[in-house]
Amino acid sequence: MDETPTSTTILSAEDLREAWPVASSEDRVLGFSRLPPDEAQAFFLSLSAREQAELVLGIGANARRLWLRLLAPDDLADVIQQVELERRADLLALVDEPTRAETIGLLAYAEDAAGGLMNPRFARLRPEMTMDEAISYLRRQARRELETIYYVYVLDREQRLLGVVSFRELFAAPPDRTVHEVMSEEVVTVPEEMDQEDVARLIADHDLLAVPVVDAERRIRGIITVDDIVDVVEEEATEDIQKLGGMAALDLPYLDTSLPSLLKKRAGWLSVLFLGELLTASAMGRFEDEIARAVVLALFVPLIISSGGNSGSQAATLIIRAMALGEVRLRDWWRVMQREVFAGMALGTILATLGMIRLAVWQSLFDTYGEHWHLVAITVGLSLVGVVLWGTVSGSMLPFVIRRLGADPASASAPFIATLVDVSGLVIYFEVARTILGGTLL
Amino acid sequence: MDETPTSTTILSAEDLREAWPVASSEDRVLGFSRLPPDEAQAFFLSLSAREQAELVLGIGANARRLWLRLLAPDDLADVIQQVELERRADLLALVDEPTRAETIGLLAYAEDAAGGLMNPRFARLRPEMTMDEAISYLRRQARRELETIYYVYVLDREQRLLGVVSFRELFAAPPDRTVHEVMSEEVVTVPEEMDQEDVARLIADHDLLAVPVVDAERRIRGIITVDDIVDVVEEEATEDIQKLGGMAALDLPYLDTSLPSLLKKRAGWLSVLFLGELLTASAMGRFEDEIARAVVLALFVPLIISSGGNSGSQAATLIIRAMALGEVRLRDWWRVMQREVFAGMALGTILATLGMIRLAVWQSLFDTYGEHWHLVAITVGLSLVGVVLWGTVSGSMLPFVIRRLGADPASASAPFIATLVDVSGLVIYFEVARTILGGTLL
Repeated sequence: MDETPTSTTILSAEDLREAWPVASSEDRVLGFSRLPPDEAQAFFLSLSAREQAELVLGIGANARRLWLRLLAPDDLADVIQQVELERRADLLALVDEPTRAETIGLLAYAEDAAGGLMNPRFARLRPEMTMDEAISYLRRQARRELETIYYVYVLDREQRLLGVVSFRELFAAPPDRTVHEVMSEEVVTVPEEMDQEDVARLIADHDLLAVPVVDAERRIRGIITVDDIVDVVEEEATEDIQKLGGMAALDLPYLDTSLPSLLKKRAGWLSVLFLGELLTASAMGRFEDEIARAVVLALFVPLIISSGGNSGSQAATLIIRAMALGEVRLRDWWRVMQREVFAGMALGTILATLGMIRLAVWQSLFDTYGEHWHLVAITVGLSLVGVVLWGTVSGSMLPFVIRRLGADPASASAPFIATLVDVSGLVIYFEVARTILGGTLL
Repeated sequence: MDETPTSTTILSAEDLREAWPVASSEDRVLGFSRLPPDEAQAFFLSLSAREQAELVLGIGANARRLWLRLLAPDDLADVIQQVELERRADLLALVDEPTRAETIGLLAYAEDAAGGLMNPRFARLRPEMTMDEAISYLRRQARRELETIYYVYVLDREQRLLGVVSFRELFAAPPDRTVHEVMSEEVVTVPEEMDQEDVARLIADHDLLAVPVVDAERRIRGIITVDDIVDVVEEEATEDIQKLGGMAALDLPYLDTSLPSLLKKRAGWLSVLFLGELLTASAMGRFEDEIARAVVLALFVPLIISSGGNSGSQAATLIIRAMALGEVRLRDWWRVMQREVFAGMALGTILATLGMIRLAVWQSLFDTYGEHWHLVAITVGLSLVGVVLWGTVSGSMLPFVIRRLGADPASASAPFIATLVDVSGLVIYFEVARTILGGTLL
């Protein structure tokens, strides 16, 4: 996008997609207006709601109407949610009355609840229809903009859900059977207020293509389709990963996040961790006399505390992801504890062995650690077992505690665990040193 | 599952799902055989390929045939892949000849390539058919076990892909139009050997329900549907999260992973990190004299190195996830560098300010740091800016380096960055201390 294209330049969708991430808002609108009409539609639909909103606000009023009308009510609601409050009514005025009413209905739901994800247009049938009647009825419905029709829902006269027929079943059944005979009455449904993460879990676990959203009277309000769920699964994983990295989750892609907002998301947690880490200075201060008498002890401080932090971060990451996938539940804490106590002891012993070998080798080569080097080695070894065990157990249990308190276990990030383990690791190390080295070095 | 159910006990699918994660292999088979027949089928289909294999191997030969025949070739191939090589032929002998042939064809593909994900059964049409002919032709095809029919592919006589019609378009079009008139010729396709992560990216970005897999002659080999992609997206996120936690990715859910294999996945990386962290003992050793002269310096070692580790882990996590989502590409490295240099300086200044305030307050309350406390405060402050800047820049650049070398950027885990930054952080800290405190404390 180094030079402004002249008005005759035709861009390909490929070129535009290439330039997109680094293009300014104006360049995006300009590039989009240069697309051949048949590529523009697919390009527009492949954009995120935020990018669609950006484009729609940037182009002229006539084109704006055209592009907004391309969107199904659930997607339109997502776009509207990206726009400032005072401009929303203007945009809604551009679409036809039924779409407007449906979109306004959807805007009332929280963005991350089932109601905020669902599409109010779905294929419906009456139980008494035959297969032939059902298929020709669906052909008429399809003309009125059904987004997805791989499941067809069977409703009674009060719009209550009776059952479901997949398209395959509808097509495969003998033409004179009734819908009631073919449909399945075991329908997995979700309530309107269910969190999108739980909806995603349900759809993934049952390998569904769509799930109906029902109200308290089992009246169907809309359907959530699996293609929306792919986005949810990615979003939720991104949020978890960012929290695990020790920061608040970003709302936008990295390169689209402004520097001030990027700093805000990072500085908060970093400062909290820093304040926690300041306790290490106090903990070290309590052992200032020991350090003065045996400076050799200070040399292993980073090694000891980082080993605790690393083993804790492994354990926490494992448990947090297993919880997010529903593989580990609150009541499994005791099984996890047993495994992690064992794992912590084993891992601690491995690292202690490595550490003591290193000390012995350096001692024999360079005589680094003085006449009491074997006591120093034992101190380091025992401390490593203790610190790694403590890191592993607290790293695996903290997600349970946080979940039990009703917060997101992903907040037990690697940096958070590391900070927690650093302070206690120092205390473990110097207490072991006092016991082992008392009377000799100390 | 405390008591063995008697032969008359009927379990509900809900109960079984509840007990599933902690049940032994035998209990699972027993519980499954007690399900009412209508619930058993949905339950079986909702299991992972590994669990399906476990059940199928545990039940009698007659039932085994029944359950295997329930699976589409792509799902059957997944189950077969979970079974030891010598038992595979026996299982394949239980299904009908066409399914067996299709499954064997699929087994030739790598599990994580497009070919290994695809289903060879898809809905197909000829371009010259009318809508009415197409619909009744599809009704006949549906009877022969099409898994999914929301997109219908239009093929020429050599099975080459001409275009695609969605079910909605097929249904909505006037009955006498031909398929050729209604179909779209712009079909997004993937080659057989494409990595599943790239397929997932493509499907998510284009909001597709299915994508056809084609060979070099544009002959269609099968389709990949979005419901398989949900699993891929989750798997890939889990792998990344586990790597980010500083360990090798697990092959099984946490509670299903045996302790020895869990230890193996964790001990490897933990030992590598430990060996890296041993360098901190050498780095500290180089400054042993300085520590002996000014023990106060040792007190801030954990604070300084952990601040570098935390800021580096934030930066690395952000960039790794943005790369996985395709938001940041290799060539964006310079833009990222510019942002992160600025972010690092800003974050470093914030932490330095907090740290210096803390020193000043403690000094005025407890006179902790002696007469040269303001020089100590300046040392800590400057070191924090330097270490945080270095952590942020190296944390954000390392994923680019690793990606450039052809490896998975997720290996630049929080513990890995922390270890890297610890050693260099110590050098920065003590060099700053030498400069500032030379002539007074040192």
